[in-house]
Amino acid sequence: MTTERYVDIPGEVIDVYRLWRPSPLFRARRLEKLLDTPARIYYKYEGVSPVGSHKPNTAVPQAFYNSAEGVTRLTTETGAGQWGSALAFACATYGLDCEVWQVRASYDQKPYRKIMMETFGATLHPSPSELTEAGRKILAENPDSTGSLGIAISEAVEKAASDPGARYALGSVLNHVLLHQTVIGEEAIKQFQLAEDTPDVIVGCTGGGSNFGGLAFPFLREKLAGRMDLDIRAVEPAACPSLTRGRYAYDFGDTAGLTPLLKMHTLGHGFIPDPIHAGGLRYHGMSPLLSHIYELGLIDALAVPQQECFAAGVRFARTEGIIPAPEPTHALAACMREALRCKETGEEKVILTALCGHAHLDLPAYAAYLGGQMVDNELPQDTLDTSLAGIP
Amino acid sequence: MTTERYVDIPGEVIDVYRLWRPSPLFRARRLEKLLDTPARIYYKYEGVSPVGSHKPNTAVPQAFYNSAEGVTRLTTETGAGQWGSALAFACATYGLDCEVWQVRASYDQKPYRKIMMETFGATLHPSPSELTEAGRKILAENPDSTGSLGIAISEAVEKAASDPGARYALGSVLNHVLLHQTVIGEEAIKQFQLAEDTPDVIVGCTGGGSNFGGLAFPFLREKLAGRMDLDIRAVEPAACPSLTRGRYAYDFGDTAGLTPLLKMHTLGHGFIPDPIHAGGLRYHGMSPLLSHIYELGLIDALAVPQQECFAAGVRFARTEGIIPAPEPTHALAACMREALRCKETGEEKVILTALCGHAHLDLPAYAAYLGGQMVDNELPQDTLDTSLAGIP
Repeated sequence: MTTERYVDIPGEVIDVYRLWRPSPLFRARRLEKLLDTPARIYYKYEGVSPVGSHKPNTAVPQAFYNSAEGVTRLTTETGAGQWGSALAFACATYGLDCEVWQVRASYDQKPYRKIMMETFGATLHPSPSELTEAGRKILAENPDSTGSLGIAISEAVEKAASDPGARYALGSVLNHVLLHQTVIGEEAIKQFQLAEDTPDVIVGCTGGGSNFGGLAFPFLREKLAGRMDLDIRAVEPAACPSLTRGRYAYDFGDTAGLTPLLKMHTLGHGFIPDPIHAGGLRYHGMSPLLSHIYELGLIDALAVPQQECFAAGVRFARTEGIIPAPEPTHALAACMREALRCKETGEEKVILTALCGHAHLDLPAYAAYLGGQMVDNELPQDTLDTSLAGIP
Repeated sequence: MTTERYVDIPGEVIDVYRLWRPSPLFRARRLEKLLDTPARIYYKYEGVSPVGSHKPNTAVPQAFYNSAEGVTRLTTETGAGQWGSALAFACATYGLDCEVWQVRASYDQKPYRKIMMETFGATLHPSPSELTEAGRKILAENPDSTGSLGIAISEAVEKAASDPGARYALGSVLNHVLLHQTVIGEEAIKQFQLAEDTPDVIVGCTGGGSNFGGLAFPFLREKLAGRMDLDIRAVEPAACPSLTRGRYAYDFGDTAGLTPLLKMHTLGHGFIPDPIHAGGLRYHGMSPLLSHIYELGLIDALAVPQQECFAAGVRFARTEGIIPAPEPTHALAACMREALRCKETGEEKVILTALCGHAHLDLPAYAAYLGGQMVDNELPQDTLDTSLAGIP
């Protein structure tokens, strides 16, 4: 927590950031050519981090500050494992123990990220587990429970609360997480100066909001100061459209209702999104900071179905050479819509997007798409009111 | 083929190299601290390429030159898929068709790299296949054959020979492949100048030899010109020790004996290495160029068992944050031996190694190591003479 507007990055964090920061800003020339668009498309690529996503940008400072405070163990939850592997990496770097409750379904079905976490020395538990009161309660009711992010959060929080040397760490949504991620946008501003260009449109995908906020907030500062004139666009999955269809209300961050209430756009803390392939975007709520600027009309938002996203991902891979993680394919789909609109109008717009990770550990999703086994799970209109019934 | 000593990198290749080149040179300060060594350890990291290894350094120029000559399709073989995915990426970039015969056992058991190749638009066939004379012959004899690299080479070569628009591409061993990879060493020389340091020992892993040659050859030039004084060390798996225990003789590059004879260190073209986890090092022969300089005494070589390698890989991951592919763990193990030797003697040696890829698609090997299921398959002494019996 801080009341300062800017926080310098500690030297000990920069020493680790050096492994992949500054991350590259690329111009997608071969994609532009394929689309035959007058638009110029840039992407800021976070897949160069050791775990292949933007998550270490916050895992490293969180581990550092905890270590500096004498904490010896961090606990957390993870679904598919992007966040868990980032925290495991960060904890290994600073010599902290790392204990991760991973949703049972992912623990059983997606072994690669589990192995990555264990290689970094983390201890993994499938959730629900017998190790916590919360887990035992769930297992007593349903011994075959495959778990949920909400249950895993409860277990990790309970363990941290009962162990004096331990703290709980979260990988998105909260203000300090978005602050850490602004290193993405700050670097991009400097890189655009080097490239002697300026973005007109910024497009990012949103799950909890850390990747999008990390890129967009520094540019939003420039816009509000009158130094840049640009549109900022959040893209979410049609199966989990918290910004475009959620209510702006106080809601819980977890399914079980253990966290403090957060004022945010929410589909309801009881809402379980369809199992789309972009696991990082399957969250019922949206970062309070992003929710706030959306209410102020400073950004716009749209929801895109997943088949259009994967089509964009394949097109990007075959031109630019990087296979995007399922999450940023949402931003790429919206980029391509904008670039094709520019083709119609002849506008030479400059589009910037956050390519927040690669798909090396998500390749089965591409197999599903290429094999014609992917469906678009758009949220039915009547789902919302039911799941939001208990929220004021 | 060329008689020129130096070949400029074509602009069209540099445009693609830009995606990950220059690759970073890192100093492993946290590893040095853990080992408590006075040695300074540097690593040149090739895992930043789109497919996570050094292979695109040659796949891209091979695809470019073929495209420039009017070739429309490249065929190749692949085992676990490192080379196949690099060539699929390169072919997508230049609009070439890519047809890959993948060893049946890997095709069935290691789906991630298969999906990666298909996402780039390549056509994959499990080998042996019904599509070639060579494949049909094997299947007639053994319908359940799980294939081998030698069979897959025969199928890819046969297809290229029968299709006027197609050519066959190889990912290691041959002179032009090693030439393409020297971009690694040339960059490292410039990076050491920036760092105002000079290596005393260069350590790289060797399978076919392209990663090792790519790093070592430019430094060897400096050594032979009297501008540097350094030791160059090749590290191979104890299960497949072609340099340290092979015969220096003319032998075939493939199991079936279809290729021209190559003068190289070889365990015999009929030799089938044990299924160790470093698939890229399971080759019976060694690049003729590397074999030559080894005979001249310009490099030394050692063989390391795989458990020591994976122990080094885990130690590296937990300090430096990058999980190394199984192949470069061999070089890391030898680095650590040298660094610990320096600790004994107090020598402040500068060690440079090639970290030729990350392990995102090889994580099950780490699971086997961490789970205590890995064994050291050292080559029995009597294996050699039998498999080399037919070689003059």
